[in-house]
Amino acid sequence: MNDVISTILNHRSIRHFEDKPLTEEQIRTIVSCAQAAATSSFIQAYSIIGVKEPVKKKKLAELAGNQEYVEKNGHFFVFCADLYRHSLLGEKEDKNVEASLESTEKFMVALIDTALAAQNAAIAAESLGLGICYIGGIRNNLEEVKKILHIPDRVIPLFGLAVGYPAKVTGQKPRLPFEHVYHEDEYEQNKEVNLHQLDDYNEIIANYYQQRTNGVRKDRWTEQMAALLEKQTRMYMKEFIQKNKLDLR
Amino acid sequence: MNDVISTILNHRSIRHFEDKPLTEEQIRTIVSCAQAAATSSFIQAYSIIGVKEPVKKKKLAELAGNQEYVEKNGHFFVFCADLYRHSLLGEKEDKNVEASLESTEKFMVALIDTALAAQNAAIAAESLGLGICYIGGIRNNLEEVKKILHIPDRVIPLFGLAVGYPAKVTGQKPRLPFEHVYHEDEYEQNKEVNLHQLDDYNEIIANYYQQRTNGVRKDRWTEQMAALLEKQTRMYMKEFIQKNKLDLR
Repeated sequence: MNDVISTILNHRSIRHFEDKPLTEEQIRTIVSCAQAAATSSFIQAYSIIGVKEPVKKKKLAELAGNQEYVEKNGHFFVFCADLYRHSLLGEKEDKNVEASLESTEKFMVALIDTALAAQNAAIAAESLGLGICYIGGIRNNLEEVKKILHIPDRVIPLFGLAVGYPAKVTGQKPRLPFEHVYHEDEYEQNKEVNLHQLDDYNEIIANYYQQRTNGVRKDRWTEQMAALLEKQTRMYMKEFIQKNKLDLR
Repeated sequence: MNDVISTILNHRSIRHFEDKPLTEEQIRTIVSCAQAAATSSFIQAYSIIGVKEPVKKKKLAELAGNQEYVEKNGHFFVFCADLYRHSLLGEKEDKNVEASLESTEKFMVALIDTALAAQNAAIAAESLGLGICYIGGIRNNLEEVKKILHIPDRVIPLFGLAVGYPAKVTGQKPRLPFEHVYHEDEYEQNKEVNLHQLDDYNEIIANYYQQRTNGVRKDRWTEQMAALLEKQTRMYMKEFIQKNKLDLR
């Protein structure tokens, strides 16, 4: 196994960081790695905001649901889907790009571009001995996040990435069975097969929690997910995106 | 610079592959790396379809706009945003998860989850000496792609990933200036600053093309992008997604 693969397979979310900021060089390396990712038709539809200012970090931590590690880390990146520069360049080149920028397709392109870049950043950080945690919680209140970071229309903050020196390393949660996620030549639609795979996985997850909590927790995955999905969260998202001139047309 | 960072920074899209299939072990390693990526609230909202069958690959290549490397490679992966299993588990656990699954928020979660997994797969493949190319072209006609790969509702193929032994290695296109993509504490909204950065970048890109084509091409980036975005492509996307029970509510 080479270093790249062992870095990737060794990933776990880190939620306790030492009080030691990243250096400018580390930040620059991480961002350069993000930028090296593939981008759809060279569109480069993302921006990254590094947040250092303690007051801003504190506010973001509160908005993300009082997640302390949003405030206390080595550096906090906010990854944004960004079609603002494309709006500018449309003006500059005197081309009508509005319909494109407001399409569902380009919204998807921007999301994918941003996530590919972010994952490069995450892996690069981990390869430097740093830990990371993605923060979807900033989507709890994007209106406020935009205000705090002065973000223009056509830019949607998608998630944060807390990076820093790990102070406490947690275990790795086992993933869905290979056979359930990977299909060959066609998607396995047999419901019985699928449910059987999920049952097998439930057992693996229940065992994992039981061991980790000395028998206190024994959630099954399907139970966890059903409870999560029964709650309707962030239902303001569509309206928010449309208000920000990414119209999902 | 460690091996991980040099692998990441060395990325380029490969569009000519040797006629040599990936081994089962390579495929398994790549998929395991994909699965090791972070996933929002452990939701694991993606599936991967490996396409080996020559007829299917040929059809996909045609649909993607006659891209030969979709057919001729070491392996072709299709990465899908997948909330189908969550629909099944809602039934299984007797919880009403429909409204959640049809929300814009969960659509975004699934897209991000899928892209994070894919980028891990890409980096893992590159670390094994393989080349990769993302294929957004499969979104030209997702209805047909779904038929060919027997994909159920609530699953959206997002892009392909052609992987294989590089037969021809291309150059790397310079990315947007660091300062234009990375902001500190707040987004740089000054239009003049932004346009100035884009002008600088235009020069870099024009030089790049000039050198690569012995003076034949000298496109500027903003010109390229404005021309790309002036065309309205894949405008069926919203309707397609909604028809597939991801309602963008």
